[in-house]
Amino acid sequence: MTHSGKAVVLLSGGLDSTTTLAIAHSQGFEPYGVTFRYGQRHELEVAAARRIADNMGVKQHIVVDIDLRGIGGSALTADIDVPKKSSVEEIAGDIPVTYVPARNTVFLAIALAWAEVLSADDIFIGVNALDYSGYPDCRPEFVQAFQAMANLATKRAVEGQQVMIHTPLIDWTKAEIIRHGLGLGVDYGLTVSCYDPQPDGAACRHCDACLLRLRGFSENGRADPAKYVGG
Amino acid sequence: MTHSGKAVVLLSGGLDSTTTLAIAHSQGFEPYGVTFRYGQRHELEVAAARRIADNMGVKQHIVVDIDLRGIGGSALTADIDVPKKSSVEEIAGDIPVTYVPARNTVFLAIALAWAEVLSADDIFIGVNALDYSGYPDCRPEFVQAFQAMANLATKRAVEGQQVMIHTPLIDWTKAEIIRHGLGLGVDYGLTVSCYDPQPDGAACRHCDACLLRLRGFSENGRADPAKYVGG
Repeated sequence: MTHSGKAVVLLSGGLDSTTTLAIAHSQGFEPYGVTFRYGQRHELEVAAARRIADNMGVKQHIVVDIDLRGIGGSALTADIDVPKKSSVEEIAGDIPVTYVPARNTVFLAIALAWAEVLSADDIFIGVNALDYSGYPDCRPEFVQAFQAMANLATKRAVEGQQVMIHTPLIDWTKAEIIRHGLGLGVDYGLTVSCYDPQPDGAACRHCDACLLRLRGFSENGRADPAKYVGG
Repeated sequence: MTHSGKAVVLLSGGLDSTTTLAIAHSQGFEPYGVTFRYGQRHELEVAAARRIADNMGVKQHIVVDIDLRGIGGSALTADIDVPKKSSVEEIAGDIPVTYVPARNTVFLAIALAWAEVLSADDIFIGVNALDYSGYPDCRPEFVQAFQAMANLATKRAVEGQQVMIHTPLIDWTKAEIIRHGLGLGVDYGLTVSCYDPQPDGAACRHCDACLLRLRGFSENGRADPAKYVGG
């Protein structure tokens, strides 16, 4: 299926959203990237998102500030320690402390606002229900409900232009995501996934994001080009 | 019906949200106020929201910054002139330029995030479908769809605590809103409704918000205690 319309793509600077951007591009969409600065404990993600937008032909890239620190409630926005593990098997099925309350609802809402201003009817988000089964706002039923709401929320929708939320990664494993991205020529050296990187950007190897990512590359028989602690 | 739970109340500093706060209070909720600074052209609304929170027994009040100026698309966030009219009859039924794309979606999303952190299951928003029929995100069908989505979006909802979005004003006229508020002792002199106030805070009398408000007080046989241009 090839499109020629504008699409808003949520870009976090991570592996999933970068793959999602490559997919939107490969389907013929003209991508507009939006990145959120929401009180992350490091600016590395935002810098990575800018590099990715520059390198991957994004038509326009905006960084939207939302100060979620006043709200708190997550290891990614407040002073809660990110848990460290020695293997993927230690990642439990329950909702992790890195869950940010209603994050994808907030991000999609702002993406929807920008889509309306751009007259875009497509939004891409790299949510994944398989590796992140603990996050309620990564499930297909959430995305469907958001789309139904979005189609009642805007002037553009009321006037008959329905919006579609695309989640190309939703039922892929991390290994499948990486395989698709490599096939589309994604340079994963540009991406940052670690929840708790060193000041120089080196990934920790032991948070959930690092462990899942390393296994995904390993299953593809490839080395992860990201920089890790200790080499 | 009397409740004893926490409720997040969206507070804009205007007449509708202030009345909504009084109603939440009168129903026994413990109100937590949230105000958004989203690139308004004046800070008067935020200052009014703070005064109202101080005066009306809000348990906690937060001001969340979201920079919607990068997104644009509205007379309230970009450099588009606010239209001036001489009477209520000139307010047409189509969507006004003061419409902010997906504003209530964005505001409710952040309110939902805060509600989850607070363990609150109730959110109050002063939307009104009658006077603001031009705004798609003030309609009951939008609010219902948001609530359905919200109940799939959060950890708290997944664990069985359903959230409810309360819209006590949704089918009231402006005169009915004011009558209810006066009955609850609301001091409307604290509120600011004008889309285009003078630097000293005096309301313009001729934007949609001023015209609707003045008629509402007039229909109650009361003078509007707000400050207007020329006395």
